[in-house]
Amino acid sequence: MFVAIMGYGVVGSGVAALLKCNREIISRRTGKNETVDIKYILDLREFPGDENEKLIIHDFSIIENDPEVGIVVETMGGLHPAYEFVLACLKAGKSVATSNKELVAEKGCELLRVAAENNVNFMFEASVGGGIPIIRPITRCLSANEIYEVAGILNGTTNFILTKMFSENVSFESALAEAQKLGYAEKDPSADVDGIDALRKICILASLCFGNHVYPRGIHTEGIRNIKPEDVEYARQMDSVIKLIASASKDSSGKINILVSPAIIKNGGPMASTGGVFNAVLVRGNAVGDVVFYGRGAGDMPTASAVVADIIDCALHSDVTKRFGWDDEIPGQVAPYSGFTAPFYVRAQGNREITEKVFGNAAEFISAGAGELVFRTQPMPVSELEAKLSETGCKILSVIRITDY
Amino acid sequence: MFVAIMGYGVVGSGVAALLKCNREIISRRTGKNETVDIKYILDLREFPGDENEKLIIHDFSIIENDPEVGIVVETMGGLHPAYEFVLACLKAGKSVATSNKELVAEKGCELLRVAAENNVNFMFEASVGGGIPIIRPITRCLSANEIYEVAGILNGTTNFILTKMFSENVSFESALAEAQKLGYAEKDPSADVDGIDALRKICILASLCFGNHVYPRGIHTEGIRNIKPEDVEYARQMDSVIKLIASASKDSSGKINILVSPAIIKNGGPMASTGGVFNAVLVRGNAVGDVVFYGRGAGDMPTASAVVADIIDCALHSDVTKRFGWDDEIPGQVAPYSGFTAPFYVRAQGNREITEKVFGNAAEFISAGAGELVFRTQPMPVSELEAKLSETGCKILSVIRITDY
Repeated sequence: MFVAIMGYGVVGSGVAALLKCNREIISRRTGKNETVDIKYILDLREFPGDENEKLIIHDFSIIENDPEVGIVVETMGGLHPAYEFVLACLKAGKSVATSNKELVAEKGCELLRVAAENNVNFMFEASVGGGIPIIRPITRCLSANEIYEVAGILNGTTNFILTKMFSENVSFESALAEAQKLGYAEKDPSADVDGIDALRKICILASLCFGNHVYPRGIHTEGIRNIKPEDVEYARQMDSVIKLIASASKDSSGKINILVSPAIIKNGGPMASTGGVFNAVLVRGNAVGDVVFYGRGAGDMPTASAVVADIIDCALHSDVTKRFGWDDEIPGQVAPYSGFTAPFYVRAQGNREITEKVFGNAAEFISAGAGELVFRTQPMPVSELEAKLSETGCKILSVIRITDY
Repeated sequence: MFVAIMGYGVVGSGVAALLKCNREIISRRTGKNETVDIKYILDLREFPGDENEKLIIHDFSIIENDPEVGIVVETMGGLHPAYEFVLACLKAGKSVATSNKELVAEKGCELLRVAAENNVNFMFEASVGGGIPIIRPITRCLSANEIYEVAGILNGTTNFILTKMFSENVSFESALAEAQKLGYAEKDPSADVDGIDALRKICILASLCFGNHVYPRGIHTEGIRNIKPEDVEYARQMDSVIKLIASASKDSSGKINILVSPAIIKNGGPMASTGGVFNAVLVRGNAVGDVVFYGRGAGDMPTASAVVADIIDCALHSDVTKRFGWDDEIPGQVAPYSGFTAPFYVRAQGNREITEKVFGNAAEFISAGAGELVFRTQPMPVSELEAKLSETGCKILSVIRITDY
């Protein structure tokens, strides 16, 4: 059986390496004792001296027009030309396995439909949580549940930075520098530290769990740049940690509350204990309760593990289209952030008495010295919190939601 | 579509309740918008006043001979007559979904073969970890990996007891009494507290991960009856907890090291933070690294969640036999416990100098007061540990393996 790989970067070369390293196991598990061989690797670059040098091509139409290639791996990243290439592959009757979260978050609904129309598969286990099994577990193993919430630590870079800030009492800037030195963060770290990567992933999970495409545009997205050592210290006093949490829940009216923002999480559970570059995904179903999936959310081999599992699944079920997917978005399905309701941690400069008067029983003070007020609120909508904070006249230094994960 | 349920106890009635409560979702997810209706419930008892009273039957042959029943749920528990009934169902061309770990651990290989021969499915997602997705994630999502270790907190009752012993400094006996009061432990708690339940589950996981049936007989199985408050205190000093761990690993020679015993686990990771009745399963693959699955390992609705997912999967793929399974056992595949190698925690009464002389650098003392020696060893095989301990002349109070989970 022949596959083609589009994009020979970290993940693409990981896929090639894994297909070689576990060749025998993989061929056994395709159910036909057939080897999985790479016929082409599409990339703009040359790779002189690379063991797969001879497979490198630069012209996509070679893949598109080769009937021997039944499965195409898309590990290029970015929306264009990944989208056009994947669309063409599906229309040419080839199944596609992708690790490209941007592609799935922006075009998943359409690509799943085109795949179904062409009786092939569009697979994306690697697009969320790297090697952590999450897409199939949600669609297959939790299929008896009404899933009402999904949340996760979906970005390893920010989790590494936050873990450092807690374990070594360093600033965001210095933890980021360390992450960059170790290769966990890019030179331009914005997609990670500003929450964009996590946003794409939670959109994929929300689409899968709730059944309608949820697009990234317009969703409240906060990164971790503003987390200060003081916040770390107060979180510690609350026997808690701070994690960048992407979450989506469906309320009784069917509206989706979805956001990416730092969150304070009590120590002791599996989310709080997810340290370093690890990811964790929490799914809440009406029968199963809370289920958490934990593992390496990035890296060449973990991500390749998910891509190759998709290849094996395509090979095993080459005769059957996997029936999972979701429908088009419902206009207005996403609730505005102003209505998002949670207890909040607030650090501010201002007058305690006025603040106490405004919040009444809805605020519990953690600290109030040296002109700095730190308190946690009762659960309230963002709009109410903001109105109250404005009424206090305080200078707001930090507002972080508190979760029950 | 009609199903039959065999065994109307906690899980069986949970399945009936879930099929009713999530009826619409379930019918949508079978892919055919077909409702899943219960035609018969087989039980020895009558259930006067129960909403499913009219479905109760006492004669298995009614199910066996009804061609309208395509899927049978086995939630009777125990080996007989569950085995005979399941075998007859498969031979009659009906797929079976079971939550019965004893059945799968003892007869899985045979039943999977018979299912394949009859072009039907034998599904058992609910047999390990209750509602936690674990069987499919291993067979489908991690299929690109060579899995070399699988381990877990697979019994909620013992985990509840151990969590209590740590959080409230109570004895095993008093924590067990509390668990019994809350319904988490049976009147005769032996299957749980002596590790038999965990043993069956790790045998299923080992069979699945390593590809050959691993039977429970002859496998080293220790429960938690001998864990004393002193051990809890020393574990705490080691910044660790004690969990009942079932584990199986394959060494480079292909031998399987499999055992159930208490283990000391450092705080901070997802296994140590699995508290109360929750379960966690750790899988180590050569590409993905460590992956952990966490959730409720028992209870009517979580377990029903897994059984009903199997029903949906059978319905979705009624035309395809799921190809996962394993081969017969290889005689001699299980390594003797005497060769099991780990660092150990030892609590003993005896002479420190003699003990130091016997162990040399291989022991690090944690405490040595009031005639009690407490130390941790370097990794060594059980046989070597036992020989050394015997040489010291110490009275051994407690030996617990130390893991890196």
